[in-house]
Amino acid sequence: MIRGMGFNQIAILGVGLMGGSIGLACRADANHLKIAGYGHRLEDLKLAMDRGAIGRATGDPAAAVADADLVILCTPVGLFRNLMATIAPALKPGAIVTDVGSTKRSGTELAKELLPPHVQFVGSHPMVGGEKHGIANARADLLTGALCIVTPVESTDPAAVVAIEGFWQQLKMRTTRMSPEVHDQLTADISHLPHAVAAALVRIQSPESLRVAARGFLDATRIAGGDSALWRDIFLDNRDNLKAGVVRLQAELQQLLARLEAGDADAVQEWLGAASKVRSAMKSETRSTKSE
Amino acid sequence: MIRGMGFNQIAILGVGLMGGSIGLACRADANHLKIAGYGHRLEDLKLAMDRGAIGRATGDPAAAVADADLVILCTPVGLFRNLMATIAPALKPGAIVTDVGSTKRSGTELAKELLPPHVQFVGSHPMVGGEKHGIANARADLLTGALCIVTPVESTDPAAVVAIEGFWQQLKMRTTRMSPEVHDQLTADISHLPHAVAAALVRIQSPESLRVAARGFLDATRIAGGDSALWRDIFLDNRDNLKAGVVRLQAELQQLLARLEAGDADAVQEWLGAASKVRSAMKSETRSTKSE
Repeated sequence: MIRGMGFNQIAILGVGLMGGSIGLACRADANHLKIAGYGHRLEDLKLAMDRGAIGRATGDPAAAVADADLVILCTPVGLFRNLMATIAPALKPGAIVTDVGSTKRSGTELAKELLPPHVQFVGSHPMVGGEKHGIANARADLLTGALCIVTPVESTDPAAVVAIEGFWQQLKMRTTRMSPEVHDQLTADISHLPHAVAAALVRIQSPESLRVAARGFLDATRIAGGDSALWRDIFLDNRDNLKAGVVRLQAELQQLLARLEAGDADAVQEWLGAASKVRSAMKSETRSTKSE
Repeated sequence: MIRGMGFNQIAILGVGLMGGSIGLACRADANHLKIAGYGHRLEDLKLAMDRGAIGRATGDPAAAVADADLVILCTPVGLFRNLMATIAPALKPGAIVTDVGSTKRSGTELAKELLPPHVQFVGSHPMVGGEKHGIANARADLLTGALCIVTPVESTDPAAVVAIEGFWQQLKMRTTRMSPEVHDQLTADISHLPHAVAAALVRIQSPESLRVAARGFLDATRIAGGDSALWRDIFLDNRDNLKAGVVRLQAELQQLLARLEAGDADAVQEWLGAASKVRSAMKSETRSTKSE
């Protein structure tokens, strides 16, 4: 199975920013695919049809997946349990199921518990998104050039992993593999903790301090403008790793305060300089649509 | 004295990003001004001359200020004590001295201690800058449209305050007035704490987590790439307010963790939603050159 060419029919469950953008990218880069879309809001389904993100619309997840050899869960992760239970009896033998959730342990566990043995589940996390959401903001190039983390477990059929990687690569994504456990640790540090901190930075402000905000603050807190229902699910799902991240962040800040208290200018500069060196070495911008 | 038109000769002490940009803005918007520049590095002075940011260059601060009716301190705040002591005997009676430091209490105290009674000191903080620095990055429009906080004290001559505000307005800045104490509290929350947190977020990462960084992390930590010597001075100078900010940030994060531990989805969403609402109401971007 080469670069996802084995798929003919796909089902996109949830036609928001991610589901819609995947559909539009398929139309651009994998035009042979027939795409069924499920959504619970009629107006979103209609817009997804109008924009060409899906070829067929249904309000019934089971009907969406019936003929699909690739099923992509694009709803918030908090809905995965009900969704998997609903589609399980309707899945075609040999079908591959993936998702685009920002946490990977819980979805993988649910798939093991709820999906039939005649399908393969391979978790995916396209590292895109940002503060915008909804089908209206979906774009054919949202995924282009971004990283997709694929999270197989020991029991996953290697052919299914290759097929899923090929699918994302066909949509011009870069891919990398890691376990769901490692994924959830790394994304807690690089994505979920930064989001929590950005929200906390906004929460401590007063109208007076917000009035003198400049670009530094706006950049540092941009992610805090994201969908709170989506991030609620992510935080609840990954709370153990998030908590560990908060503890380490607090230790770093305590170290800074101790150096400030001691009036040790060299030690303060060393603390700041180590961060500046690492951050300066990273490319300073990705394309403006890229985010987690 | 109307909108800074009363000034004829100005001295810019320190020809880096800020000093250079002020010089270039003067050439664009207040072309009548004669500008003397002081710097301790010959190559920076030469580049400032070549770029037209200053009209006369000297390695002696006292020589730079001798004829100036406006003196602008643009060096790191850690150098202000020596600089003020050096220029004090050379300042012209009636001259106005300002600075562009990111903290305002200490500079105001130093001015009271070191400058002669026949000059007026009025602190300024143009809320621009960012992760770039040096005369090579100076730009005539760096200040344009940004906010300049002016920080008089009770004893400041009101005419001097109006003159300084007029000067910044002539360079197309917006201005606002507050005491040095209020300034240092507000900027600790909106600028210094976000910088400390961004650096801490970078410091806790591993090579593995950095490898999966997306735009959200890059935006949230952009400010951490700034000049560590500059920020060392700011942090040391404003450590009491910075410490108070860290305490409040930690309390916010503990509140989040408690809600996550309790598994209270509504409470987690409320916590995130309050931040999202505030952040979404702010303009999402200022011009790309603006920062604190």
